[in-house]
Amino acid sequence: MASIFTKIINGEIPCYKVAENEHCLAFLDIMPRTKGHTLVVPKKEVDQLFDLSEADYTELMTFAKQVAIAIKSSVPCKRVGVAVIGLEVPHAHIHLIPLENAEDMVFQKPHTQVDADEMKNIAKKISENM
Amino acid sequence: MASIFTKIINGEIPCYKVAENEHCLAFLDIMPRTKGHTLVVPKKEVDQLFDLSEADYTELMTFAKQVAIAIKSSVPCKRVGVAVIGLEVPHAHIHLIPLENAEDMVFQKPHTQVDADEMKNIAKKISENM
Repeated sequence: MASIFTKIINGEIPCYKVAENEHCLAFLDIMPRTKGHTLVVPKKEVDQLFDLSEADYTELMTFAKQVAIAIKSSVPCKRVGVAVIGLEVPHAHIHLIPLENAEDMVFQKPHTQVDADEMKNIAKKISENM
Repeated sequence: MASIFTKIINGEIPCYKVAENEHCLAFLDIMPRTKGHTLVVPKKEVDQLFDLSEADYTELMTFAKQVAIAIKSSVPCKRVGVAVIGLEVPHAHIHLIPLENAEDMVFQKPHTQVDADEMKNIAKKISENM
């Protein structure tokens, strides 16, 4: 069965799209740690990040850097943190999280509430800064 | 002043070394989340990961992948998680953390106690699997 991310990539499930290229997609996490929390995924459905081929991995990490720099220009934050956990969705994904402090990375805390209009605006702003 | 990681790179502070190449160093975190928790750093002292040049960043991420694969072969775990936070030491560093569950990534919990002999053995094992 296709992963939820493959369904998003295929347009079967909507997303707040941030950026896309031939191999990768970036979109806002709908349960954001902080405003601007973005997921970066390879279009190829591979479970674990480090099981990607050298080329696909480098492609994804290069794309993630571009997205992270655009997030930092778009959302007030000290820096953009990175998390790869992946125990829930078997499709490699990188969390890019605007950080003010280390607690912003704690996934066990309730997520930040952001309404649809603001999500749309954040995605648009990051997208324009790519 | 040189960062603590630069001092480790220069051999002024000892470490449980896992791997090294011309541009990068990997060594065990002395306050490990889980056994095998490794730090990967560029030898160049740059504060934020995404401020590294394209070439230095790709070099570091490629090295981190090799280290992560060696960790997975050396330490029992479901997968190797990634965290980049960086609010404490102004020298870019990637945490590679053997995960059994998402709580293994929570930096706010007390770290795992591992004695020096075991740290040495874990570093050696990962190193041999590189």
